[in-house]
Amino acid sequence: MVNKKSYGLGSQRSSIRELFEYGRQRIAVAGYDSVCDFSLGNPSTPAPEQVRKAFSDILENEPPVAVHGYTSAPGCDEIRRAIASSLTNKFNMDIRPENLYITCGAAAAVTSVLAALTIDNQSEFIAVAPFFPEYRCFAEVAGGSLKVVPADETDFQIDFDELEKAININTQAVLVNSPNNPSGAVYSAETVKRLASLLAAKSAEYGKPIYIVADEPYRELVYGKVSVPFIPEYYGNTIVCYSYSKKLSLPGERVGYALVTNKVEEWKKVFDAVAGSARMFGYVCAPSLIQRVIARCADIQPDLRVYERNRNLLYASLTEMGYFCAKPDGAFYLFVKSPAGNGNDFSEAAKKKDVLIVPGAPFGCPDFVRIAYCVDTEVCERALPVFGEIINSK
Amino acid sequence: MVNKKSYGLGSQRSSIRELFEYGRQRIAVAGYDSVCDFSLGNPSTPAPEQVRKAFSDILENEPPVAVHGYTSAPGCDEIRRAIASSLTNKFNMDIRPENLYITCGAAAAVTSVLAALTIDNQSEFIAVAPFFPEYRCFAEVAGGSLKVVPADETDFQIDFDELEKAININTQAVLVNSPNNPSGAVYSAETVKRLASLLAAKSAEYGKPIYIVADEPYRELVYGKVSVPFIPEYYGNTIVCYSYSKKLSLPGERVGYALVTNKVEEWKKVFDAVAGSARMFGYVCAPSLIQRVIARCADIQPDLRVYERNRNLLYASLTEMGYFCAKPDGAFYLFVKSPAGNGNDFSEAAKKKDVLIVPGAPFGCPDFVRIAYCVDTEVCERALPVFGEIINSK
Repeated sequence: MVNKKSYGLGSQRSSIRELFEYGRQRIAVAGYDSVCDFSLGNPSTPAPEQVRKAFSDILENEPPVAVHGYTSAPGCDEIRRAIASSLTNKFNMDIRPENLYITCGAAAAVTSVLAALTIDNQSEFIAVAPFFPEYRCFAEVAGGSLKVVPADETDFQIDFDELEKAININTQAVLVNSPNNPSGAVYSAETVKRLASLLAAKSAEYGKPIYIVADEPYRELVYGKVSVPFIPEYYGNTIVCYSYSKKLSLPGERVGYALVTNKVEEWKKVFDAVAGSARMFGYVCAPSLIQRVIARCADIQPDLRVYERNRNLLYASLTEMGYFCAKPDGAFYLFVKSPAGNGNDFSEAAKKKDVLIVPGAPFGCPDFVRIAYCVDTEVCERALPVFGEIINSK
Repeated sequence: MVNKKSYGLGSQRSSIRELFEYGRQRIAVAGYDSVCDFSLGNPSTPAPEQVRKAFSDILENEPPVAVHGYTSAPGCDEIRRAIASSLTNKFNMDIRPENLYITCGAAAAVTSVLAALTIDNQSEFIAVAPFFPEYRCFAEVAGGSLKVVPADETDFQIDFDELEKAININTQAVLVNSPNNPSGAVYSAETVKRLASLLAAKSAEYGKPIYIVADEPYRELVYGKVSVPFIPEYYGNTIVCYSYSKKLSLPGERVGYALVTNKVEEWKKVFDAVAGSARMFGYVCAPSLIQRVIARCADIQPDLRVYERNRNLLYASLTEMGYFCAKPDGAFYLFVKSPAGNGNDFSEAAKKKDVLIVPGAPFGCPDFVRIAYCVDTEVCERALPVFGEIINSK
């Protein structure tokens, strides 16, 4: 009666969303102070004041017919110009408005790009574990498939031997998510260079481009002096997918972009295919008011103080208790190895004490859990004794 | 190198969008007063003042982390409750929040519903001409196909003999768009009853439900005393797709819903499949701020004065000149038969005089053009001499 794949995806929520909904119900019953909800990557730092001002100013001073009207499908001129100029100033590349397709967030960008790169049902996409679980359905949306390269669990860079084994004539793209959800790892320039060199060699071997799809919603969320390599500078056939969700604390507003630079072979063809996928999926345009807000706020930097404090607190406390986790350089996740049993057991044990952490299996690392520390610091403080109890009871 | 279908859809804009982009460029060159742009269904009446107030109040008084955060995938509680209550009050049915899946507009709803109802690549959807051209790619997104039933060009109701011939064992749904884009026709209760009875009989014959997918963004845009039958009251297996784009003049903001009532057989299964399709297409949630705005504005009625004036002016003037068109009872389109040659010729002749009207071929009626009269009345007035010249030169 209905599409099996759709029903499967709709009747089984993602484990992240499942835990988030459980958390909402628990908070309704037990109160906010009783539950430590680390399930969802929903920023706890409010959107910058400039964002609120931009909203107000546009709503008060611009004509509503223009503000709320359809924009061109790839986005209104203002936002494309503002982002192109921001990226050109920031990176060593000439990025133009026509390289940018404004999307309803990074998820819309990734699914549209993967569909655009799916030639037939042999098409394969590669994710390096740990990876964002929704990549699987985005890879399958147009009939392709996802292949997962096991994680390098020491520092969550790339195990290149494993990656090389995974590449074949059907490989269309490698998904890169750095800073990484869920590990917080940032790929080093060294890692990106090796990846570029491997993919250049494999593209030559198979006589076809193998793309990098760089999913970068956490680009600006890095700590200390870490810098995030801009992959198109290292590898021409890179398509960047971005979202303002995390940087500007606007995850619900659904605005981001797919960037197809002129360095992508036949970039206009790839761009048009992305546009066509978005059209097929019913993305008429990205929401119009927020497009105008972003046009004014594209250069604002995030306030990372709470996240950095939480990261330092959790990392120091958990490692001192005896937990293993790689120190995250970016994003707002800590990826922690279960002290006994697998990540599901760890998540269940914590859930019983109203601490909500996501099992690592859907991310491709079943022995781990993800702690989304984009929460008030007091939530981290409240959770620490529970983490202590769990590791001591093993 | 890229997906052929996506590339095709992305490199060839829809004819509506094509003309709209041309119009923007012409206005930039020749000035607003030189071009009569009837291409796009972009409401010219501003959003009601209550909408602006709701935006301001939410932005000023509610915490930004909540306002701009992710909502549950099917929508925030407030909007689902408000719409369920509004529909329950308006229609003779018990509609509950859990029947509503909030979407990024009607396009997202239709594409998610059609994908949900696509069982395999034999699945067929039927549109009755004239129909919204994007239905074709929405029907094909999950591997199904679109079959078009020729228009009844006298009054743009349904030619039931033709419809019956089109239905077979693979028919999954009939798309209904009333008030209709592009004809402005509203299906009468009589039409809806005959449709319900035909589909009930065919469902019984084939031992499977044949759904109605009712795409209703123009529900409240009707003139005079015309009423729009609420199809779920007549036929249980109806899924309604709705958008606030036209009623509240918010087309760019992308907010609407799919309604799967309890009268749909195995409604929860259908609902879950819709949710799964939306998830696969990367619709994380509908934009969050506008969800909260709609929660407060669900019952506001549109201001139809300008549209009604335009309809009356254009219909009276064009028929007096000798044009044929059915008098539209709803929406904001006039569907006019080309006085000589086909709709393309008519559109081209008008375009030469900077009057932009969309050829009817993509709507399934090649002899017609669509005039979107959601414009300032003076645009209609300026265009009338051009329409006079064209019909007199034939």
